[in-house]
Amino acid sequence: MWGGRFERGPAEIMERINASIDFDRKLHAQDIAGSKAHAAMLVAQGIIASDDGEKIQAGLDAVKAEIDEGRFEFRRDREDIHLNVEARLAELIGPAAGRLHTARSRNDQVATDFRLWVRDAADRLSGQATDLVAALLDQAETHADVVMPGFTHLQVAQPITFGHHLMAYVAMLERDIGRLRDARARLNECPLGAAALAGTSFPIDRFATAAALGFDRPTANSLDSVSSRDFALEYLAAASILGVHLSRLAEEIVIWTSAQFRFITLTDAFTTGSSIMPQKRNPDAAELSRAKVGRVIGALNALLIVMKGLPLAYAKDMQEDKEPTFEAAEAIELVVAAMAGMVRDMTPNAPVLKAAAGTGFSTATDLADWLVRALNMPFREAHHVTGRIVKLAETRGIDLDALSLADMQGIEPRITAAVFDVLSVDNSVASRVSFGGTAPSGVRLQIAAARTRLGL
Amino acid sequence: MWGGRFERGPAEIMERINASIDFDRKLHAQDIAGSKAHAAMLVAQGIIASDDGEKIQAGLDAVKAEIDEGRFEFRRDREDIHLNVEARLAELIGPAAGRLHTARSRNDQVATDFRLWVRDAADRLSGQATDLVAALLDQAETHADVVMPGFTHLQVAQPITFGHHLMAYVAMLERDIGRLRDARARLNECPLGAAALAGTSFPIDRFATAAALGFDRPTANSLDSVSSRDFALEYLAAASILGVHLSRLAEEIVIWTSAQFRFITLTDAFTTGSSIMPQKRNPDAAELSRAKVGRVIGALNALLIVMKGLPLAYAKDMQEDKEPTFEAAEAIELVVAAMAGMVRDMTPNAPVLKAAAGTGFSTATDLADWLVRALNMPFREAHHVTGRIVKLAETRGIDLDALSLADMQGIEPRITAAVFDVLSVDNSVASRVSFGGTAPSGVRLQIAAARTRLGL
Amino acid sequence: MWGGRFERGPAEIMERINASIDFDRKLHAQDIAGSKAHAAMLVAQGIIASDDGEKIQAGLDAVKAEIDEGRFEFRRDREDIHLNVEARLAELIGPAAGRLHTARSRNDQVATDFRLWVRDAADRLSGQATDLVAALLDQAETHADVVMPGFTHLQVAQPITFGHHLMAYVAMLERDIGRLRDARARLNECPLGAAALAGTSFPIDRFATAAALGFDRPTANSLDSVSSRDFALEYLAAASILGVHLSRLAEEIVIWTSAQFRFITLTDAFTTGSSIMPQKRNPDAAELSRAKVGRVIGALNALLIVMKGLPLAYAKDMQEDKEPTFEAAEAIELVVAAMAGMVRDMTPNAPVLKAAAGTGFSTATDLADWLVRALNMPFREAHHVTGRIVKLAETRGIDLDALSLADMQGIEPRITAAVFDVLSVDNSVASRVSFGGTAPSGVRLQIAAARTRLGL
Amino acid sequence: MWGGRFERGPAEIMERINASIDFDRKLHAQDIAGSKAHAAMLVAQGIIASDDGEKIQAGLDAVKAEIDEGRFEFRRDREDIHLNVEARLAELIGPAAGRLHTARSRNDQVATDFRLWVRDAADRLSGQATDLVAALLDQAETHADVVMPGFTHLQVAQPITFGHHLMAYVAMLERDIGRLRDARARLNECPLGAAALAGTSFPIDRFATAAALGFDRPTANSLDSVSSRDFALEYLAAASILGVHLSRLAEEIVIWTSAQFRFITLTDAFTTGSSIMPQKRNPDAAELSRAKVGRVIGALNALLIVMKGLPLAYAKDMQEDKEPTFEAAEAIELVVAAMAGMVRDMTPNAPVLKAAAGTGFSTATDLADWLVRALNMPFREAHHVTGRIVKLAETRGIDLDALSLADMQGIEPRITAAVFDVLSVDNSVASRVSFGGTAPSGVRLQIAAARTRLGL
Repeated sequence: MWGGRFERGPAEIMERINASIDFDRKLHAQDIAGSKAHAAMLVAQGIIASDDGEKIQAGLDAVKAEIDEGRFEFRRDREDIHLNVEARLAELIGPAAGRLHTARSRNDQVATDFRLWVRDAADRLSGQATDLVAALLDQAETHADVVMPGFTHLQVAQPITFGHHLMAYVAMLERDIGRLRDARARLNECPLGAAALAGTSFPIDRFATAAALGFDRPTANSLDSVSSRDFALEYLAAASILGVHLSRLAEEIVIWTSAQFRFITLTDAFTTGSSIMPQKRNPDAAELSRAKVGRVIGALNALLIVMKGLPLAYAKDMQEDKEPTFEAAEAIELVVAAMAGMVRDMTPNAPVLKAAAGTGFSTATDLADWLVRALNMPFREAHHVTGRIVKLAETRGIDLDALSLADMQGIEPRITAAVFDVLSVDNSVASRVSFGGTAPSGVRLQIAAARTRLGL
Repeated sequence: MWGGRFERGPAEIMERINASIDFDRKLHAQDIAGSKAHAAMLVAQGIIASDDGEKIQAGLDAVKAEIDEGRFEFRRDREDIHLNVEARLAELIGPAAGRLHTARSRNDQVATDFRLWVRDAADRLSGQATDLVAALLDQAETHADVVMPGFTHLQVAQPITFGHHLMAYVAMLERDIGRLRDARARLNECPLGAAALAGTSFPIDRFATAAALGFDRPTANSLDSVSSRDFALEYLAAASILGVHLSRLAEEIVIWTSAQFRFITLTDAFTTGSSIMPQKRNPDAAELSRAKVGRVIGALNALLIVMKGLPLAYAKDMQEDKEPTFEAAEAIELVVAAMAGMVRDMTPNAPVLKAAAGTGFSTATDLADWLVRALNMPFREAHHVTGRIVKLAETRGIDLDALSLADMQGIEPRITAAVFDVLSVDNSVASRVSFGGTAPSGVRLQIAAARTRLGL
Repeated sequence: MWGGRFERGPAEIMERINASIDFDRKLHAQDIAGSKAHAAMLVAQGIIASDDGEKIQAGLDAVKAEIDEGRFEFRRDREDIHLNVEARLAELIGPAAGRLHTARSRNDQVATDFRLWVRDAADRLSGQATDLVAALLDQAETHADVVMPGFTHLQVAQPITFGHHLMAYVAMLERDIGRLRDARARLNECPLGAAALAGTSFPIDRFATAAALGFDRPTANSLDSVSSRDFALEYLAAASILGVHLSRLAEEIVIWTSAQFRFITLTDAFTTGSSIMPQKRNPDAAELSRAKVGRVIGALNALLIVMKGLPLAYAKDMQEDKEPTFEAAEAIELVVAAMAGMVRDMTPNAPVLKAAAGTGFSTATDLADWLVRALNMPFREAHHVTGRIVKLAETRGIDLDALSLADMQGIEPRITAAVFDVLSVDNSVASRVSFGGTAPSGVRLQIAAARTRLGL
Repeated sequence: MWGGRFERGPAEIMERINASIDFDRKLHAQDIAGSKAHAAMLVAQGIIASDDGEKIQAGLDAVKAEIDEGRFEFRRDREDIHLNVEARLAELIGPAAGRLHTARSRNDQVATDFRLWVRDAADRLSGQATDLVAALLDQAETHADVVMPGFTHLQVAQPITFGHHLMAYVAMLERDIGRLRDARARLNECPLGAAALAGTSFPIDRFATAAALGFDRPTANSLDSVSSRDFALEYLAAASILGVHLSRLAEEIVIWTSAQFRFITLTDAFTTGSSIMPQKRNPDAAELSRAKVGRVIGALNALLIVMKGLPLAYAKDMQEDKEPTFEAAEAIELVVAAMAGMVRDMTPNAPVLKAAAGTGFSTATDLADWLVRALNMPFREAHHVTGRIVKLAETRGIDLDALSLADMQGIEPRITAAVFDVLSVDNSVASRVSFGGTAPSGVRLQIAAARTRLGL
């Protein structure tokens, strides 16, 4: 297939390291679509005859049918998806097949195929992420009033609501979806027609093939077209950041389902048992989601490394772009789907959450803020006074609202009974009405706004 | 500073691992700007008195002046930039300083500071990248007709032009600039007012502080506001991808300045000598640029790892967000500036480039295309015939255009003397007029289009 | 300093990207030690005169004193530590300084300096890790009988002891120390005398300089000597793996100090407060340790990337070896010291641990094993029967040992009252006497064995 | 399989994310070997009856035969390799199969299987690396006298020999082999018998199973046994460092086979052609080797990330340990084999190499050293004088040895005709007799020493 100059075949190890058909067969649909668009353009431009064009179109459809029906034999001696398809086409339609590769090269062909694949992957992932947002919005709405402890440093900090907590992930995911959309828009230029690297002297119409394949326009530089893989890197970066967000929710699910937290319950649908400990109910899907994100990051890192320092134009190193991308896409799609499943499956344990929200002097900030507001105390002083009151309660082993007024006045005489209004978790939560705050009224507004933005 | 509950100070190692002032002092301008906006809003909302507000504004200006003039003492026992500034403010203006921290927390404060810093970094990097594009466009225009070999696999493939080659980097950089702009737009929401994590019961106006700091709007979820660092990750990802692009140009500069290639010359301004080998003229800046990209990728990777699996909301782990980001920004800015310098400094060695363009049977594709066009041969057959002709030339140790017509007709009798027209590198280059191709006319169009897009 | 061929100085950006003195000044002690050994050898071999040698030795001592006393001016225009030292030496002793660089190059000089630095770092880290082991052994011994829940998937699995849990980290750390020792042994070859890359024609004695600097022998190939940095990579890999181990203990400390777990208490020495929430007691040092490990991994990754694909011999890219290594060493040393501090500081909350150990049907495996032993039931069947008993207890909302014998016999009639012996957590723990198991007797044996192995 | 407590099956996405049989089937040989050793021990210790033991042994042999002969049906509903094997065993031998899992868990089982697999991988890789060393030694010996340019910064630095250059890789590979051996020794402890995490109350003999599986001893802590994967991380780190070394040789092969360098030739066995450019002869195997190393580093990074921050003991995250390790092993083994093939296949182009060695004033250091030796000039001054002589030659466009004595004396009057002896590349190379230097005599000694060390 490399023309008439080679006198002997490759070494066995050469063939093994070189063959890509085991993984680039995933590109078969894109490869055939690209060839069909290319052939149609060649006919329209008068570069090949229309009867050759018809044979090619019919032949490619036949090859596609063979693949879809599992009848196609992928051959490693035909190296890659491009040559597998073309060689089979030649078997089916004869010499006309030899005209398909006019004015193109495997370099622009694979760049086109892979862009189409990544475009689909970005679209799939956006769609999945939107579905996960829908699941989060439903749960957030249902549990907008469920009070739970808000944590910093995994220490109880202030009371918040379950709905508010879930909405934090909605905010992250909306940005993730934005990143995927931006990546999609940026990659949507067609490299087909760049040929090996320099363009071609055939009178091709790159705007026509671009349009036929749903691209916004052809790429503007033929070397860049065959040499760049930033479209895959940007997808992997967006997937990694999305993954980091979901790894955090996964970590929370693992912690929340522990016997010590019992904040939520997952059903049998999303837990597994043990081969030795009959009582176990493990949050495996959350753990696997958390872990798979590590592999997505590994894939991003790998492709950045592969591409670093390569001189232009195409180098064979770039063949190593596909496996990390395919694996990362598979992993992140599993993760998003599993998270959507778990979010829909989880039930918050409201009494436990509320009790936990009241521990750890969680309304201490409310007390300090009361001192500022009621006594016009500078915040720093209020913070210090509150610290002393907390210490008193801690010494006694009781909560803040179990202290008597006299106890508090022993530390700050100007405190009045009105202070007790701010020490309940419900009042605390309801009072946080600043924009983006945890008050249920505000959370409901944010849910509605997100539904509008995403059309959910 | 943590209120009245702590009885003894931290262990020495605790203090050492905990203090961030050695690096977060870089945020001083952002921190003071944020505090000024916050204080102005507190006054406008009637939360603090206007005379306190005036004292705070004047005091913060005084602190800023001390820092700008190098008179400020950054103290490790004051832990971080926020407490250093606030404590100094208290020394300068007394108790009013204690009112500044009303309705905020260090959690939203640092999130605001760091966003502002990353926004500036993204703007700086876009600007630098645009300057590099300007340098590339100038060189590409000057050398739009300089013929050089185009490589694939670092083997001579087809003749291209020096201008066309440089324009490949323009295409990459335009996408890089787009990524930075998208990142900038996405991060431009203000977390100030999220307080510790839950919002606040003070009647703050987050839209006012957002506007005062140049943000498009406040963030919509207070937990997300203090917990997320995807804005830094997206910046680092964009910087890494940009860096990968420049590492490729750096690699080419290293290869091109070797004695074997001699494709370009750098002046003394961008080469260094050796402590032992007096004749050396090393492309150190290119090598360092190539290497620094590895460190930018390392920083992206590090922050992805730091953030993975953290439960909400703020965790101290996030303090490790700044050093990688600062270092990566410094590294990538050095790289872009050095590349702009080298691009402006380099002179292509036109005779060497042209001679090299003609070696390695670089117009073999032109010959194959001629066979398709002139003889209506299917490309696959033309490719095979060309391979045999190449082999003949190779055996004789001569170039393609040194073969006689009879030699060629010995392989394919229908070949005519017209074939010699396509075997010269100049004709080859001029014929590649497909959109994005290497023909000088097309390259000039692309240069003009890029100038228009970027206003250069 | 590069001899007489350069006509103009470097561009400003060239100087900025090129200068390494801001970080390689850390190598000053190693650089001077290397120069002293080299000079002594040059004299011994008759390559330079002994009076020149004496001047050089005295001058280097003077330079060292200036640095140690903070009187040395590190100059960026002198580029790096080597030229800074040599230039100052020339100021101090005149022309004799010009003879020091005979038969060496900065390439072998920096390779020697950096190896010495990494050797010291590996030794420091081994020592620190051993100290952490000592802390763990002390705590493990003190609390060898404290029963706690053993977790898998963060779900209560089986009762174990606190001592046994800590000993898991001792096992990891022993391997970590082994890795550091192996790395140290492998790197302990001296590159000095490799000169620029090819060796030298001066009659140097590389065995002498190697011995003077504590190396086992000189390196065997001069190109490898100046081109390889696997000694730093191996150190970083060992530090990363050690870091991963400690990140796990850090995660446990964060979880264990949460209000929901309360498994251990840290004192004020290792916790911090909040600027807004007066009641907080945050495990910052554990969080920072966990996070810093991400940066150590980032450093390993960065240096692997920097070195990948560099042709031999020295390339300037290698200058980027030092910052990641220095930063990683600083980070991991902080982490190990902080972990040792926290391990010594922590107090297990024995009643809480024991109560937790009994929840979640943690002795279900003991029940299954009893069925195997007492009734000769195949394990798979026993596992299934136990599952049904657990479900009965779960339905009733009680623990396993609160079921009546009749309840159990309702599921498996052959069960006898003897079964209750295995359902207590103390008996469960005491019964796990298999080698390496959790029985306190076994744990004490392992503590003693570790003390012997490490001389603690 | 998880006992009787679960009421409904897992969600479809749960099953998909959870199943590991698609990749852990690679562990089948190790899994069956481990089960056979465990069963034999259970019989020997009287824990199960000997006739049950016999059935189990025969059944496991039958399962192994089915797998080896491709007759085994791997079922995803049986989740993993352990349950696939055990379930099939139960079908073959009935209830006795249910006794095999006595006193073990999947946690220690998979830890054992995976250790055995990694041990085999480390042994394979050591063996391959040794074979590559053999190939390098043969080429180095054959071409010990072939003079070539030594490079720094890819600029010609000093003449060296082809044999010396290859021996640099031998030095790296010897350390790589050492790392693999150290990793192998460290991992060779048997986790079997750790059970789920706490050990077992059955009277097992862990020393017996350890010995049966070729381990040096059992692991000393049961939690560590099931929780740690540093053995895989250490293997991946060693593979990454080895890979970095080979990526450098790969880069050199790519550069050396370029038309501009022509330093070596590869045959058709290790080059490929182009689908569009009939004349191409691409060093694909070198490029793919270089790229695959990026993926090995990505795998190391991924597993470090997966393991970071996991609380003890087993977490499902660890299931993600196998795919990166399997893929990295496959990649690095392909790389080492391909490099061995290319090293054996390559022919150095001696005339081109020698001519290149003489360009670029490569003997300038020899001239400087001559000035030191002959004129007792301090090296720094000699370096400066040489720089001026180089500049003169450069201005004239000639090599150093084409300058007349008068030319040189114009710069330094004391220079004599004896200087010309050191300006030839052959003399330069022959003079570098320092230990590890490039003189052919020294290289031959190093080749012999390496053969002795490695038994080659």
